[in-house]
Amino acid sequence: MTRIRRGYGGQALSEYLQARRAEIDAALAHVLPQPPECPDVLSDAMRYSVTAGGKRLRPVLCLASAEAVGGDRAMAMPAACAIELIHTYSLIHDDLPAMDDDTMRRGQPTLHVVAGEGMAILAGDGLLTEAFALLAREPRTADPDVVARKLRVIGAVAAAAGAAGMVGGQAIDLASVTPDPSGRRTPPLDADGIRAMHARKTGALIRASASSGAIMGGGHERAIAAIDAAAAELGLAFQIVDDILDVEGAPADLGKTIGKDAAAGKPTYPALYGIDASRRMAGECLARAEAALAAERLADSRLLEIGRWIIERSN
Amino acid sequence: MTRIRRGYGGQALSEYLQARRAEIDAALAHVLPQPPECPDVLSDAMRYSVTAGGKRLRPVLCLASAEAVGGDRAMAMPAACAIELIHTYSLIHDDLPAMDDDTMRRGQPTLHVVAGEGMAILAGDGLLTEAFALLAREPRTADPDVVARKLRVIGAVAAAAGAAGMVGGQAIDLASVTPDPSGRRTPPLDADGIRAMHARKTGALIRASASSGAIMGGGHERAIAAIDAAAAELGLAFQIVDDILDVEGAPADLGKTIGKDAAAGKPTYPALYGIDASRRMAGECLARAEAALAAERLADSRLLEIGRWIIERSN
Repeated sequence: MTRIRRGYGGQALSEYLQARRAEIDAALAHVLPQPPECPDVLSDAMRYSVTAGGKRLRPVLCLASAEAVGGDRAMAMPAACAIELIHTYSLIHDDLPAMDDDTMRRGQPTLHVVAGEGMAILAGDGLLTEAFALLAREPRTADPDVVARKLRVIGAVAAAAGAAGMVGGQAIDLASVTPDPSGRRTPPLDADGIRAMHARKTGALIRASASSGAIMGGGHERAIAAIDAAAAELGLAFQIVDDILDVEGAPADLGKTIGKDAAAGKPTYPALYGIDASRRMAGECLARAEAALAAERLADSRLLEIGRWIIERSN
Repeated sequence: MTRIRRGYGGQALSEYLQARRAEIDAALAHVLPQPPECPDVLSDAMRYSVTAGGKRLRPVLCLASAEAVGGDRAMAMPAACAIELIHTYSLIHDDLPAMDDDTMRRGQPTLHVVAGEGMAILAGDGLLTEAFALLAREPRTADPDVVARKLRVIGAVAAAAGAAGMVGGQAIDLASVTPDPSGRRTPPLDADGIRAMHARKTGALIRASASSGAIMGGGHERAIAAIDAAAAELGLAFQIVDDILDVEGAPADLGKTIGKDAAAGKPTYPALYGIDASRRMAGECLARAEAALAAERLADSRLLEIGRWIIERSN
């Protein structure tokens, strides 16, 4: 398969990922609101979902992007954590009975199963709000350059997570499978519609993860744009691979029910194009990501390795 | 009762409120995400709730606070709108079946009744996220002073709306009336607990409305602190008056079911102290607000008139 890379002081990607995840998990534990300021019942609920594991793809991309532009990982850590909080909130709300109605996530009962629907809604609301509090608060500095970067990242993350981004994608997804109270239901999505839906639902936040890291790392505009473009390709590849895994399995990896999307009649890449073509499409995303990075001499960063790792999950 | 004030070019408070509400409603219509960037179904849902009326107390306080410190209302308008979006999201989620299960709000069916629970959850998520996108985006300027103010306001609003503020208050409220899936239920709140719950649930965002206006208006630190302290009193007065109205009525004003909180066994000020003492307590809040403002020569602003208006709703 792809060669195991041993640059960066001989550190393989697996070691890099392990080290970054440990840093991220430690930082997340630190930024989560604590009692007594945060009520115990809410603190428990937020912590349950944030510490339930997960690949930490988005924060890793954020940190790797800061490094790719020659920046300091520590500068990007608040953005990395904030984006993981937003990702976690989106999973909590997506799993609710009124949405996907999932009872298992990352191999554990979903939050609404253990804490109740109301508390799960509030925990999601709290995580989303705390993400912006964190982005405004850290890194703590009055340096006008960093203040301006922080404001730019807040704008980028909010746009990616909002009505034109992730929440918009969720709304399109929901409306395509669930009729509203008057029985109205949007027509099924075609291939273009699915790609656009995924670009919002998962792609936008993955892009924002990478571009936020590049911004906080102090990258030049062209480097930020190249990393953003590459991350858009990685986000699409990630979605295609997720659809393949939904058909083919790897339940221990996914920690959720296999075949659920297909059974729910949700349009998936394998259903539209078949498994082989879907794999090929994911590979083409990676090639385009490499071209975007190479144009700015960023192809030698960890970003492309992370892209390969995304693809290999489906092989 | 209180004299009708006719300063400010002879404009009575009612005219001032009407003018500010018209400005705010126009600005809100402008800042709400539009199709095609925002999916129609989500845009419709967000717009339904934001345009369903309401007193616009929070944005009016925000604008009046900017004026009180000698600032420009236009500088505070994005914060005013963002806070109203956050207030609206909190009502949508609070009304959900898993929370208060309200079917009427502001005299109209609640959003989940007309758009479904899933879409109502997403519309709330979208409004919360768009609030931060707006705070990061506007006013559009690279002026480092304004950039720093914007970042400070984002931090203040997120803290007020988050786990230590509004969402935390909702969680305490929910846990006090609804057992979790394992049957666990927190003990009933005593008088101190109720005050602390309300300080989070409604007080924090009302304070942030006023202090954000003072910050964006360029107020000095002592003026910002005085306005924040006064707004904390007004927020408590508002809650006491709301509890009185829940007992006494004025359903056309409230646009919701009377006696609902009392019937649900929620602890209210009239239930704890009686109607007369509750009214007196609200008046004492106003007196303390006046003292805080007077110490910084801010008592001659619209803020105190707005406080009197809050109290008069219960008379």
